[in-house]
Amino acid sequence: MPAQTPTSPPPLLYADTERSADALYFGRVSVPDPFIAFAARGKKYAVVSALEFGRVKRDSAFDRVLPLEHYLAKAREVWPQRKPGPAEIITLLSRELDQPAFTVPEDFPAGVFQKILDLGVALTLATGPLFPSREIKTPAEIAALREGNRCSALGLAAAEHILRASQIKGRSLLYDGKPLTSERLKFAIETACLEAGAISAHTIAAGGDQACDPHERGSGPLRPHQLIIVDIFPRVTATGYHGDMTRTFLRGHANDAQRALVSAVRSAQLAALKKIRADVSGRTVHEAVTATFTSLGYETKHTSRGSTGFFHGTGHGLGLAVHEPPGLSIRYDTPLRLGTVVTVEPGLYYPGLGACRIEDVVQVTAAAPKFLSKFHYVWELR
Amino acid sequence: MPAQTPTSPPPLLYADTERSADALYFGRVSVPDPFIAFAARGKKYAVVSALEFGRVKRDSAFDRVLPLEHYLAKAREVWPQRKPGPAEIITLLSRELDQPAFTVPEDFPAGVFQKILDLGVALTLATGPLFPSREIKTPAEIAALREGNRCSALGLAAAEHILRASQIKGRSLLYDGKPLTSERLKFAIETACLEAGAISAHTIAAGGDQACDPHERGSGPLRPHQLIIVDIFPRVTATGYHGDMTRTFLRGHANDAQRALVSAVRSAQLAALKKIRADVSGRTVHEAVTATFTSLGYETKHTSRGSTGFFHGTGHGLGLAVHEPPGLSIRYDTPLRLGTVVTVEPGLYYPGLGACRIEDVVQVTAAAPKFLSKFHYVWELR
Repeated sequence: MPAQTPTSPPPLLYADTERSADALYFGRVSVPDPFIAFAARGKKYAVVSALEFGRVKRDSAFDRVLPLEHYLAKAREVWPQRKPGPAEIITLLSRELDQPAFTVPEDFPAGVFQKILDLGVALTLATGPLFPSREIKTPAEIAALREGNRCSALGLAAAEHILRASQIKGRSLLYDGKPLTSERLKFAIETACLEAGAISAHTIAAGGDQACDPHERGSGPLRPHQLIIVDIFPRVTATGYHGDMTRTFLRGHANDAQRALVSAVRSAQLAALKKIRADVSGRTVHEAVTATFTSLGYETKHTSRGSTGFFHGTGHGLGLAVHEPPGLSIRYDTPLRLGTVVTVEPGLYYPGLGACRIEDVVQVTAAAPKFLSKFHYVWELR
Repeated sequence: MPAQTPTSPPPLLYADTERSADALYFGRVSVPDPFIAFAARGKKYAVVSALEFGRVKRDSAFDRVLPLEHYLAKAREVWPQRKPGPAEIITLLSRELDQPAFTVPEDFPAGVFQKILDLGVALTLATGPLFPSREIKTPAEIAALREGNRCSALGLAAAEHILRASQIKGRSLLYDGKPLTSERLKFAIETACLEAGAISAHTIAAGGDQACDPHERGSGPLRPHQLIIVDIFPRVTATGYHGDMTRTFLRGHANDAQRALVSAVRSAQLAALKKIRADVSGRTVHEAVTATFTSLGYETKHTSRGSTGFFHGTGHGLGLAVHEPPGLSIRYDTPLRLGTVVTVEPGLYYPGLGACRIEDVVQVTAAAPKFLSKFHYVWELR
């Protein structure tokens, strides 16, 4: 008889699908409160309350949907001294289904983890992603990501339209007779996404020095002749997959320094895109970006008040989570895998001059990467 | 010398502020990726990357903001064999600041938890909320919750307006000449919330039998003469606090069974509101609801296909999280505390007849609860 192949115990999750992309990937149904999900003997199980029962039974990828209330009552009988919760129910089911061990993700809640171990069920912590297959996107997932980026592009188009339609009056931009603010631009972007079936939270529409903080979302009046970063990463409600695109606009006339900055960022993006392919590491792609910036004379500095230049990764995986493996940064020195999806988003940030970031999404292939995002690169809106 | 009062070690978090209300409560700044936050010797610390550094330093409640990159490099020197991450950095800081022990929340990631313990830092798991003070709302928090419910109410008003403006044509509702769907109603609601500065995700606008699954969000055409549940729980972008309100509408003419159902739910809500005050348990409040339903002849049944009647809690705490302690349900047998905020949302669900839920938000006082939500109870829109 051949030896058993060593395999990990099946997965166990205790999470809601808003916070855990793994839980959504596993069960393919939205559940807003933490619930128990696991595999045992080749079947997928969920334990949910009456509030979710019918819907999860009907709409999910779970083979067996078990009623939480029944198992809570049972746990109360077995452990009359304890306040029963997920740990007790998981222990009961581990016994009932003769499944003595599970693998849990690194972000499994420590409180439940500890209690389950104390109750004698064996838990192994995953040392990487719980579902490595999440990284390799299927054709259906690629379609969902394209749809996410279609929503991002609709948001960019809405922003561009408003910027073009705005009047320049001295240091002000007026749209519909009133000062154009980051808030008004974000509202137009988020409405465009909503209309297309996606929620765009934390949209960035930041101009001038505000944009020099990459995660600053922008507030107050937007100014003419200043660089404005627009970064839109909506989640499509029907699928849970994201888009993630950034363009940098300027309404009015750019000066030479602004033109050089934008041109450098675009060159860096093209340098990264040229490198991306299966078997090249995320680190190598990132180094193409830093080399481009260095050769063009753009320095990166870290001070006690913050950083200037280029000080974030070149990109990140995109899927059910906005940030997921793999990454394009110094931390990723293993080769990119065929079929993974990454953003490509170099940026430069210099208070006084302003900031520029340009971001697209591609799938890694054996040759040139496949674009999953589409929007033009015209940025100076005169 | 008097004996030391036994106190818990200071808090330690590793979470992003989207997923962890504790992290947002502690630092009062939005950080989209997991970061280290803790208290030591009376000061609040955060460790963030260059991407967040300037913004967190400027806009947060942290006393000390430390650069992630510096500590990653240091960890690489101390443990050249390990791939450094949050556990190594927390261990370094624990030594540097002579703070040998921390308390972590129950949802602290198990992977980091295990590594920190292995590195010799003492961790205590909180046995309840990490910040018990989160339950008791300050005047500023009450104002933020009122603002959340103002957004919910704007959404309800948008839905009511569209329902009233819709034409009844046989089994169809037409709005602007086209069939009125759950999707169109949700879009109008979510746009109203956006305009007011809040994001309403997972909005429910479900009619007929669809609404009999309490977390079913609704899809396809809405029908005249059917009960339509509209449940709106937006998050105000500026503060992170939520609103949460539900009304049940019907466009057309209700029949006697529908009227009796709505009347029973409203009676149950009033019965609950009458009970709510400091020192009464959430369980007692919930039992007032079940007693009302029983006395009016509404039975609750659980079958293998799902449940009918009343099968969820009467309410939940509301704050930076949509669902947080305390609760109004059989699980909460300790007295409600002064200053806590809860939803009051009984409902009845009977496929064939339809479903009704009515939800408001109140603050617990020593006398009658204080309303934090405001919208009328007219539901039959002829």
